[in-house]
Amino acid sequence: MTTPKPLRFGVIGAGAIGSLHARNIATRVAGASLSAVMDINLEAAEKSLYGNAYATTDLDKMLGDPDIDAVLIASLTSLHSEHIQKSVAAGKAIFCEKPVAIDLEETRRVMKQVDDAGLPFQIGFQRRFDPGYAAIAKAISSGEMGKLEMFRSQSSDPKPAPEHYIATSGGIYIDSVIHDIDVARFVAGEVKRVTALGANPVDPVYEKHGDIAVSILTLEFESGAIGVIQNHRRTPHGYDLRLEVHCEKGKLVTEDERQTKLWRYDQGGIHGDYFYYFMQRFEDAYRKEVQAFVDAVHAKEPIAPGTRDAIESLRVAVAATKSLKEHRPVAIAEV
Amino acid sequence: MTTPKPLRFGVIGAGAIGSLHARNIATRVAGASLSAVMDINLEAAEKSLYGNAYATTDLDKMLGDPDIDAVLIASLTSLHSEHIQKSVAAGKAIFCEKPVAIDLEETRRVMKQVDDAGLPFQIGFQRRFDPGYAAIAKAISSGEMGKLEMFRSQSSDPKPAPEHYIATSGGIYIDSVIHDIDVARFVAGEVKRVTALGANPVDPVYEKHGDIAVSILTLEFESGAIGVIQNHRRTPHGYDLRLEVHCEKGKLVTEDERQTKLWRYDQGGIHGDYFYYFMQRFEDAYRKEVQAFVDAVHAKEPIAPGTRDAIESLRVAVAATKSLKEHRPVAIAEV
Amino acid sequence: MTTPKPLRFGVIGAGAIGSLHARNIATRVAGASLSAVMDINLEAAEKSLYGNAYATTDLDKMLGDPDIDAVLIASLTSLHSEHIQKSVAAGKAIFCEKPVAIDLEETRRVMKQVDDAGLPFQIGFQRRFDPGYAAIAKAISSGEMGKLEMFRSQSSDPKPAPEHYIATSGGIYIDSVIHDIDVARFVAGEVKRVTALGANPVDPVYEKHGDIAVSILTLEFESGAIGVIQNHRRTPHGYDLRLEVHCEKGKLVTEDERQTKLWRYDQGGIHGDYFYYFMQRFEDAYRKEVQAFVDAVHAKEPIAPGTRDAIESLRVAVAATKSLKEHRPVAIAEV
Amino acid sequence: MTTPKPLRFGVIGAGAIGSLHARNIATRVAGASLSAVMDINLEAAEKSLYGNAYATTDLDKMLGDPDIDAVLIASLTSLHSEHIQKSVAAGKAIFCEKPVAIDLEETRRVMKQVDDAGLPFQIGFQRRFDPGYAAIAKAISSGEMGKLEMFRSQSSDPKPAPEHYIATSGGIYIDSVIHDIDVARFVAGEVKRVTALGANPVDPVYEKHGDIAVSILTLEFESGAIGVIQNHRRTPHGYDLRLEVHCEKGKLVTEDERQTKLWRYDQGGIHGDYFYYFMQRFEDAYRKEVQAFVDAVHAKEPIAPGTRDAIESLRVAVAATKSLKEHRPVAIAEV
Repeated sequence: MTTPKPLRFGVIGAGAIGSLHARNIATRVAGASLSAVMDINLEAAEKSLYGNAYATTDLDKMLGDPDIDAVLIASLTSLHSEHIQKSVAAGKAIFCEKPVAIDLEETRRVMKQVDDAGLPFQIGFQRRFDPGYAAIAKAISSGEMGKLEMFRSQSSDPKPAPEHYIATSGGIYIDSVIHDIDVARFVAGEVKRVTALGANPVDPVYEKHGDIAVSILTLEFESGAIGVIQNHRRTPHGYDLRLEVHCEKGKLVTEDERQTKLWRYDQGGIHGDYFYYFMQRFEDAYRKEVQAFVDAVHAKEPIAPGTRDAIESLRVAVAATKSLKEHRPVAIAEV
Repeated sequence: MTTPKPLRFGVIGAGAIGSLHARNIATRVAGASLSAVMDINLEAAEKSLYGNAYATTDLDKMLGDPDIDAVLIASLTSLHSEHIQKSVAAGKAIFCEKPVAIDLEETRRVMKQVDDAGLPFQIGFQRRFDPGYAAIAKAISSGEMGKLEMFRSQSSDPKPAPEHYIATSGGIYIDSVIHDIDVARFVAGEVKRVTALGANPVDPVYEKHGDIAVSILTLEFESGAIGVIQNHRRTPHGYDLRLEVHCEKGKLVTEDERQTKLWRYDQGGIHGDYFYYFMQRFEDAYRKEVQAFVDAVHAKEPIAPGTRDAIESLRVAVAATKSLKEHRPVAIAEV
Repeated sequence: MTTPKPLRFGVIGAGAIGSLHARNIATRVAGASLSAVMDINLEAAEKSLYGNAYATTDLDKMLGDPDIDAVLIASLTSLHSEHIQKSVAAGKAIFCEKPVAIDLEETRRVMKQVDDAGLPFQIGFQRRFDPGYAAIAKAISSGEMGKLEMFRSQSSDPKPAPEHYIATSGGIYIDSVIHDIDVARFVAGEVKRVTALGANPVDPVYEKHGDIAVSILTLEFESGAIGVIQNHRRTPHGYDLRLEVHCEKGKLVTEDERQTKLWRYDQGGIHGDYFYYFMQRFEDAYRKEVQAFVDAVHAKEPIAPGTRDAIESLRVAVAATKSLKEHRPVAIAEV
Repeated sequence: MTTPKPLRFGVIGAGAIGSLHARNIATRVAGASLSAVMDINLEAAEKSLYGNAYATTDLDKMLGDPDIDAVLIASLTSLHSEHIQKSVAAGKAIFCEKPVAIDLEETRRVMKQVDDAGLPFQIGFQRRFDPGYAAIAKAISSGEMGKLEMFRSQSSDPKPAPEHYIATSGGIYIDSVIHDIDVARFVAGEVKRVTALGANPVDPVYEKHGDIAVSILTLEFESGAIGVIQNHRRTPHGYDLRLEVHCEKGKLVTEDERQTKLWRYDQGGIHGDYFYYFMQRFEDAYRKEVQAFVDAVHAKEPIAPGTRDAIESLRVAVAATKSLKEHRPVAIAEV
C-alpha cells in the first residue's frame, strides 16, 4: 500500500483542547504528524509535545516553517480570527476550533479570505463526528425515513462557566447553543426563523452580563419543518445530550451515552454515571473530526463543516440572541 | 373492616371510553358499582352492562333514579355541557371526560354551576394517574429536587383523526395538547404566556380546517420556569409520550413505556413494540382516576383535577390556539 | 350482555397474600365475588372483608356454605394439603397458593383426589400471568422464533427469610426456585435432568438448615434444549427477575421492570428504583391469575397451571434438591 | 515532555487481526511504531503497511532486524508456539494473539521459555480492555461492592464458523469460551472446578467433530463463589455479550452495547442494531490492549494478561472440555 506523506501539523494554543488535538495528531490520527506546538507559555507547549515535535512561543516562526503543512487553531477565541488570517498568509491548511469570531461580520470577512485563498478549512463542530449524531444525519440524508418534520436537540452542561468567560463569550447562543444549531443545520437543513425564550434560575452572574442559563429556542426551517433546542447550564449529573427527529416514516433518537458502560444495582436501586463534560463525551469525535480533515486534505475533497458552516451556524446564533433581546421571532435574513 | 356503601354509577355514553369506564366501575373500582348505562343506541348500552345494571336510552329517567349516586359522562364532547347541567339539576356527583366544552366561556359558566351546587366534580385528565407522571409530580411537590426550572412534554398519536372529528375538535391545542398542558400545570404550576409554532406535513385536511399536525408550544410559567410541549399527530410506531423536567438538583424523566414487556433480538437487531393508542397506554390510569374520584367522594375530600383545572387547562389551550393564529406570544390573562 | 352469576369465593387464610386475593376478588376480578374470609385469627379475617362478605374462624362452616362456589387457599403451606382435601370433600372449585405440599408423594396423592373429583383446580404460579413471561411463552408456542435452544431465568430476593421459615420451607428449590422451574416448564417444556450448584455467602442460618442462599441450577429439557436458573437470596436493590431465551431465529428477553416509571438524574448520575419484593412485582399478576381461574371456571375450560403442573414443577425442585445434596446430576425420572 | 523512543513492532501475520493490529500500531498506539509486516503472502503483508514499514515473507530476517523491538504474533493458531519460540530466541518483546497453543503442555513449556528469558509477554485477551469489563473488574478489586458471590458471563456469535476451522479449533471451550473464562478469572479469581453442559441444535458439523454449538458451563471458584458461562454460536442479531456479577453489596451489569448509537421508531416498533462480530465489538479494545503492552514495556512494569494467564485460562478450558466429554464435574487440579 502506498501511504501518503503525513500532513504535518503545527498546533496553535496548548490549553486543554489544543493539547488533546496535539496528542491525537501525534498518536491517533492516521496520515498526520505533529511538527510543532506554539503557545505564549513555553512550558505548556512543551508539555504537549510528542516525538520530534518542537515547542515555540513564536507564531510567525512556526507559520514560516516550510515543513508544516497545516495548522490547528486552538488559541483563545478572541485570537482565532487573527490566527486564521496569519495562517492564510502563510498558505497553511487550517483546522480552527469554533468560533471563527463572535462577530458575524468579522466571521464573514475572514471566511472570505480563506475561500479566496483556496485553502482547506474546517471549523470544529465536532458533534458531526459523533456516531449517534452522524447516524441520524446519514439516515435523514439517505431518505430512508422520509421527510424530516420535527427536530429536537437538548444539551446540558454540568456547571456554570466562570464569570470572566461569561462576560466575553457572546452569550449562550453564540457560545454554546451554536453546537445544537450546527447539528440542526447538519440534520434538517437551513433555518429560516428563530424565537428564543430564556430563564435565569441558576446564577445571577448570567443576568448581570445580559445572558441566560436556561434556553428554549424554536426553529422554523426552510423546508417547512419546525424544531426546538433546549439548553441548561447546570445539570448536576453531568454533560447530557439527546437528539430526536420525527420524520414521515418514524422517529430517530440517539441513545443515552454514559461514561462507564456499567449499571450498578444496590440498596438505592439501579445507577449509572454520566459524562462529566464535553471533552469526555466527545473524546473520540475530537479525533475523528481531525481525521476527516486530514483525509479530505489528502484526497483533495471538499471539507465539511467548512467556511459556509462557520458563517451560517453563527448567523442563526446571532439571530437567536437578537430574538432573546427583542422578545420576538427573528428571521435569519435579518442578520 | 367497615366498607362503605358503594358509590352507584350511571354511565352516560357507551362508546369506547364509556364502555371502558363501565367495565372498570363494575369490576375493578373498589367502593363503586354500576347501576345503569345510558346511550341513544340501546344495543350499545346493553353491551356495556355488568351484573344487575340496566340499560336505557332515557337520560332523564336515569338521572331521576334515586339509586344512582354519581354519573360518569362519556357522551359526545358537544353534549358534555348539557349533560353536566342536567346532572347538577339531579344532584349527582359528576365525573366528566374532558373537555367540559371547547368554548371557554361555556366551560366557565358550567363549572360555576357545579361549584355553586357544591357537587363533587372530576374532569378526565387521566395522565395525572399514570405512575410516571404521578411520580414526577410527587417528586416536584415534595421539594426533593429543588425548584423546577425547565419543563418538557412530548406526545405523539399514531395516525390522523377522521376529517369529521378534526372539523369539530377545536384544533390540536383544545383537543389534544390540553393533556400536556394539564400535565404542565400539574407538575410546574400555572402558565403565564404561550407561543405556538405549527407545521402541516401530515395531511392537507388539517390545513383545510385551520388546524396543524405538528406543534411546538413554548410556555412561560408564573414561577419563572420555562417549558416546551411537542406534539405530532402521525408517529407510525404508536402512541408515544415522554416527560422531562430539569430542576435545581437534577432531571426527572418518565421511562419509555411499551405495550409488551419484551425485547426481541433477531436478524434485524433488537426490537420492542409500542402502545398502539392512548386507550392501551392509559388503560390502568383510566381505572385509577375513577378510583380516586370514588375514594374522594367517600372521604368527602377535595377532588383534583376539578372544576378549576377544567377551566385553567382549557384557558391555556385557547391562548395557544390564539398564538398560533396571530403568530405572537399570548398571555393567558388575555383569554 | 348476559353476565354470568359471579363465582362466589371463600378465602382461607387472611395473611398478606390471602388479604391481597380477598381484595382482588372483591374489587378487581370480573365475574367473581367475595363471600367469606376464614382465618383462625378473627380480627385478621375481618380486616380482609369487603361488601357483604363475612368473617369466620370455622373452616368447616365456611366450606358447608352452599352460597360459596370456590375457595382460594392462602393458609400456611403446611395446611394446604389438608385444606385442599376438605375443599374437595365440599365440592368447591379450588385455587391454591403454591405449593400443595413440600412432599412430592403427598402432592401426588392430593392432586389425584382433585382430579378424581373432577373439580376445577389452579395452583398459584403467578409468573405465568406476568406480561413479560406470558409474552415469551406465547412467542415460543407460536413457533415464530423457531425452536427454543437455551433457557435462562434469574430471580433474586432482597433479603434472607426469617429462620423459622427457612427451617420448614423445604429448601431453596422447593420454596423459591420452583417459580423459575415452573416458568422453565411453561416456556421450554418438560425437564429431563438437573444439576445443582450452591453457595452460602449470605447467612450461616442457611447452612445450619442444610440450605443455600445462592444457586445455579442447570437443566436438560426433553426437547434437547439446555438451560440455567440463577437465584440469589439477598440482592440489596430489591426483587429482580430476568428471563432470556435463545431460539433458532433469535433471542427474547423480558425487559427490566422497576417499581416507579421514573429515571432520576442527579449529582450521582442516573438512578431508578426497583420492586421491593414479589408482592409489588407481581401485584397485577396476582389479580390476573385469579381472573384466569374465574374465566376458566365460568367457561368450563381447562385450567393451567393445574394439578399436573403442581406435581411436575415440584418434581423438578425435588430432583434439584437431591442433586445439591448428592453432588451429581439427577434425572427427573428418579423422583 | 520527554517522550520515549517508540517501541518498534514487527507484525507476524497479515490476516484480519494482524492488519488491524498493524494499523493500530502505525496510527493509533502512542509510543509505538510499525517497522515491518511479515506474511507468507507478500501482497497481504504489503497491504498492511503504513509509513516507512517494510513487508517481508521471511520471518527469520524480520526477527534478525535489530531495529525491531517487539513482535505482535497474529499468525495461524497452529504456528503461535513456534513463532513465540523464535521471538524468544531473537530477544523480542512479545504480544501474542490467544491461544499460545491448544495443547496445555505445549503452552506450559513455551510460557516457561518466555519467563526464563525474562521477556515482556502479553496474551491477547482483549476483553480485559473493554470499558464495561474493565469497570466491573475494577469495582470488584476495589472492594466497594463487597465479596463477589455469583458470576455470569454470556457470549454469542452470529454464525457458525467454517468446518475446517471447527475441525482444528480445539472445541468451543478452548477456541471461544476461553474468553469468558479469562474474564471469570480476571473478575472473580481462580477457578476450582467446572461442569459443562452442551447441546447441538445449530449445525450437525459440530457433532461430527465432537464439538457443541450451545454451552452452559458452571464454575466453582477458589473463593467459594459460583458462576455460569453461557455461549451460543448462532445468534442472528449479531455478536452479543453480557456480564453480570452479584456481590455482597449489589449487582454489576455491563450495559448492552450496540454498533450504532441510535434507536429507530417506526411502524414495527422500536429498533436498534447490534455489533456484527467481535472485531467490531472490540475494535477499541484491540487498540487499548496493545497500548497497555507498549506502556508496560516502556515503564518496565508487569504485564497482564501474561504467561500465567495464558496457561491458567487454557487450563480451565481444557477442564471444561474434559467435563463435557466425561459428563462429570472436573477439578482444575486434574489437568
